[in-house]
Amino acid sequence: MPEKVYDVIVIGGGPGGLSAAQYAARSNLDTIVLDKSPTAGALAFSSKVENYPGLPEALSGKELLQIFREQAIGFGAEYLEKQVVGVRLEGEIKEVYTLDETFRGKTVVIATGSMGRKPTIKGEAEFLGRGVSYCAICDAAFHRGKVVCVVGDTEEAVKEAGVLARFAETVYLISPSSKIKVENDHPTLKMANLKIMMGQSVIAIEGDEVVEGVRIADSDRSERNLALSGVFVYLHGSQPVVDFLGGSIELSEAECIVSDRMMATSIPGVFAAGDVTCTEVRQIVIAASNGCVAALSAEQFIHHRKRHKYDWAK
Amino acid sequence: MPEKVYDVIVIGGGPGGLSAAQYAARSNLDTIVLDKSPTAGALAFSSKVENYPGLPEALSGKELLQIFREQAIGFGAEYLEKQVVGVRLEGEIKEVYTLDETFRGKTVVIATGSMGRKPTIKGEAEFLGRGVSYCAICDAAFHRGKVVCVVGDTEEAVKEAGVLARFAETVYLISPSSKIKVENDHPTLKMANLKIMMGQSVIAIEGDEVVEGVRIADSDRSERNLALSGVFVYLHGSQPVVDFLGGSIELSEAECIVSDRMMATSIPGVFAAGDVTCTEVRQIVIAASNGCVAALSAEQFIHHRKRHKYDWAK
Repeated sequence: MPEKVYDVIVIGGGPGGLSAAQYAARSNLDTIVLDKSPTAGALAFSSKVENYPGLPEALSGKELLQIFREQAIGFGAEYLEKQVVGVRLEGEIKEVYTLDETFRGKTVVIATGSMGRKPTIKGEAEFLGRGVSYCAICDAAFHRGKVVCVVGDTEEAVKEAGVLARFAETVYLISPSSKIKVENDHPTLKMANLKIMMGQSVIAIEGDEVVEGVRIADSDRSERNLALSGVFVYLHGSQPVVDFLGGSIELSEAECIVSDRMMATSIPGVFAAGDVTCTEVRQIVIAASNGCVAALSAEQFIHHRKRHKYDWAK
Repeated sequence: MPEKVYDVIVIGGGPGGLSAAQYAARSNLDTIVLDKSPTAGALAFSSKVENYPGLPEALSGKELLQIFREQAIGFGAEYLEKQVVGVRLEGEIKEVYTLDETFRGKTVVIATGSMGRKPTIKGEAEFLGRGVSYCAICDAAFHRGKVVCVVGDTEEAVKEAGVLARFAETVYLISPSSKIKVENDHPTLKMANLKIMMGQSVIAIEGDEVVEGVRIADSDRSERNLALSGVFVYLHGSQPVVDFLGGSIELSEAECIVSDRMMATSIPGVFAAGDVTCTEVRQIVIAASNGCVAALSAEQFIHHRKRHKYDWAK
């Protein structure tokens, strides 16, 4: 059986990606959204949104995202909760890799936002791939029966800790803040081999060939060592999330994706939307607008149209 | 008493203008929206909108506009139903003229949409200002006790006919279609001196120095003359609405407003948003995004900031 080729693969389920999916699907393009998590990302982390034009009342970021998601699905887009770990974007058929599946598409819209960060913990860059990881689902199996830690305090961090706890002997959830941002009855918190350390920071990752332990400081700066084999970092910064691209696409010096007014990137058939682009302003409505334009561009790329139609998708 | 100077004067009450007003007002700028009519414009004329990202269910264009308007007002913007008839945009304080008032502002956002048209009726261009008019409120008084006609079938056309009927002896509402787009109980329709002619087209405007009559054709192409002194045209096209600018601002060959990525026009302190700009795609979400960017640019212009702040208006 020949493998399925989508018209549009959207990477990222925030306002840019879901808007792209909505307009693409409504334009009869076979569209799939690959979203790392519906509860991660700048909008999902917003407790209250009131300045999105057209909102009759303030909503939480998660509520607004759900409306975006339901619209995209309602217009016919597929939505999968899958983390993209790599891509091959050159050529006519582009490939997008998750851990367990490869997706093929005629066009790709990159909308992964800007909550990325560069390594900031001492040893983090050095041990990346040798005990340091940003993907529990990818690397949990390497730590079967061992001790690992997750660094972070978000719902995403807790969820990833839950994945790890099914493999590791002990998972330490090391939260830099004094509060974990999930409901108290979150099922992961009840797992017997999950140990939560509040108000603690990992200040160094240590080892020889591979990670052997971390150095932890608490709020009064007293330090101690913890022996373990894996460090999963879920701290968020404000860097465009482009690590999975592996240098395949043109980035600016600030490591954002360079795009033109029609959201085209340096690779034909690959478009970008939202905070992952080199935007002057990070706002939901701008990401949504980018997504709309990216979808139109994808449609034109597929149909080799030169002229834009003003009444598109009306 | 010194005259009030607004931070931002927004011309146009569609999604571009109201989004600009929302973000400007929320950023503590003293903001006013001058809207010709809340029931005119491309969005107001849309019977159903379902593809605006973030809409949980389909709305009429008027309903969505009302949400945009209430948001802008809720964040502190003033909203006036006033038609702008001219501008003076050069210099530090810009002036915006309506028929009975002058508004002064540090910045102006032009968001008048693209339902304008070039003269298409024979004699229309020739008699403009000599009996042909696009502004009943401006010119009704010239036709006191005389006979005039309004050409069009929209709510706007009916409303303008109502204005004229308070001055003229008789107002003919000449509708090219066989239906007037208002409720049957619209009060203007009950005015004794309003006469409705359905399915009729004005094919020529005639006269010597000034308008003396029109030539009318009905659907079976039979023609006749009607003696009158004024022709008020409310037909809609898809040209950017820029007539009130009087050539003060750079337009492209297509007569749309040239703007950069930050929605700046050729005049410092003057920004544009939505379908009046040279946009490749006419979509509500793009107009709203433009309005957001225009408001940010107005704020930076007023405060002479060079650098953009990412967290603006959060």
